Amino acid sequence: MTTTTKTSFRQRLREASERNSSLLCVGLDPDPAELNGRDIAEFGIAIIDATIDLVCAYKPNLAFYEAHGSAGYAALERIIDHVNGRVPVLGDAKRNDIGNSVRFYAKGLFETMGFDAVTVNPFLGRDSLQPFLDYEDKGVFILCRTSNPGGADIQGLNAAYDGVPMPLYEAVAHMSKSWDTNGNIGLVTGATYPSEAQRIREICPDMPFLVPGVGTQGGELEAALSATLDADGGGILVNSSRGILYASTGSDFAEAARVAAENLRAQIEAARPSA
Amino acid sequence: MTTTTKTSFRQRLREASERNSSLLCVGLDPDPAELNGRDIAEFGIAIIDATIDLVCAYKPNLAFYEAHGSAGYAALERIIDHVNGRVPVLGDAKRNDIGNSVRFYAKGLFETMGFDAVTVNPFLGRDSLQPFLDYEDKGVFILCRTSNPGGADIQGLNAAYDGVPMPLYEAVAHMSKSWDTNGNIGLVTGATYPSEAQRIREICPDMPFLVPGVGTQGGELEAALSATLDADGGGILVNSSRGILYASTGSDFAEAARVAAENLRAQIEAARPSA
Repeated sequence: MTTTTKTSFRQRLREASERNSSLLCVGLDPDPAELNGRDIAEFGIAIIDATIDLVCAYKPNLAFYEAHGSAGYAALERIIDHVNGRVPVLGDAKRNDIGNSVRFYAKGLFETMGFDAVTVNPFLGRDSLQPFLDYEDKGVFILCRTSNPGGADIQGLNAAYDGVPMPLYEAVAHMSKSWDTNGNIGLVTGATYPSEAQRIREICPDMPFLVPGVGTQGGELEAALSATLDADGGGILVNSSRGILYASTGSDFAEAARVAAENLRAQIEAARPSA
Repeated sequence: MTTTTKTSFRQRLREASERNSSLLCVGLDPDPAELNGRDIAEFGIAIIDATIDLVCAYKPNLAFYEAHGSAGYAALERIIDHVNGRVPVLGDAKRNDIGNSVRFYAKGLFETMGFDAVTVNPFLGRDSLQPFLDYEDKGVFILCRTSNPGGADIQGLNAAYDGVPMPLYEAVAHMSKSWDTNGNIGLVTGATYPSEAQRIREICPDMPFLVPGVGTQGGELEAALSATLDADGGGILVNSSRGILYASTGSDFAEAARVAAENLRAQIEAARPSA
């Protein structure tokens, strides 16, 4: 399933990030309401062609493809094929299941679809994540504190971990750290809750963080970066979807996406202490 | 999106259950290791043809289809079309996401794929489930206490809900009850943990429960039924997958599945107080 000769996801991410001087991840989330009738695969390919030298990764959210059933998955397969390993592609799947089922999710996402990394939901516990973690060269981003207000309903409950009281999302960070025997775990920490993100960074100083919620979700970029950057001024993927994809919905959408991506990349670079 | 003239999921489930005198749900989870090269759509259709008068619902787990990418989704679409509304089909998707993304999951699963109900993961909170709940005529089964040992990692944490200490899965049951303004929520409570399931039944006496883990997962049928049946001796879907699908892996697989389904249905009926 995995071999020790393969480059790790973290290494591939670092290479793309350094080559393009970028911590920007573009979310490939085609919303028909914004596409003016464009085909979702053609749209994604045009966005990739316009931005691939500006990003450290792409992140298609599978919801936007599953909405179209098998045709949507076929479009997603075309998009991943088009990237063709030039930068990592992170499948924002938020999958979680048990036993045999989760083995098939891991196989489908990592082998059939060919994602370099995926997001997963930790609610079903360690054994539900192990089949993903067993792919040593792939990245597994565990939801920790999501960027939506309702994230607090469960993630914000006061829980006790190892007898110590703490919010549940902190317990998830501690567990994730203890589960990371293959060094391939990352965490999802919304830009919209920087103080929570900072606490998570203190618990997991070396893990890559996927930071969604910048832009249309209202996360303040500088506060989010200051909370999540690691000691080397990296270690994060700052995701933006709608702010880049729909910078224009006219025929200049790809050029407008490039300008928006250039601007956001530059803002991020300006805020990095090491930049 | 929904109209008040549609029959609710609960009503459709009750009708199928009464017509077939059955609380049995067959999980359509095609594992290539057991299929002897059979096509997954043809396999599912043969199982349906052999058992449709014995079940209250079918439950395909999407992992087994996503494992094949777009071809797997095409197979799943064929299977749902083949059932054609004769009994409800529950998509075991365990999906969860936020904002626009979860709207697209709900649309994909309920409209494009045509599921009558789905399973969802509550980790992202109420706003992450609302787009599913807004489909008033569809069923939404929230994961509460799953049937795997690792379910305890997070679901079993000591949490505080409304200031009262309780295991997290009980907090999920309380929240689910408070979120059920459309009367379309159900809960997933594994057969493998009957005492937890019984506690959840006490909190939510009237909700339908999906009870996986009977058979190959080792759940004792009678204990599971006694813990989860509602006051009317119903209100549950007892799911079995491998024990029925792979009762034989030879050319008689469909006939063997029918026999296994008949036996399990009869065992369940015998254990129902009202039967």
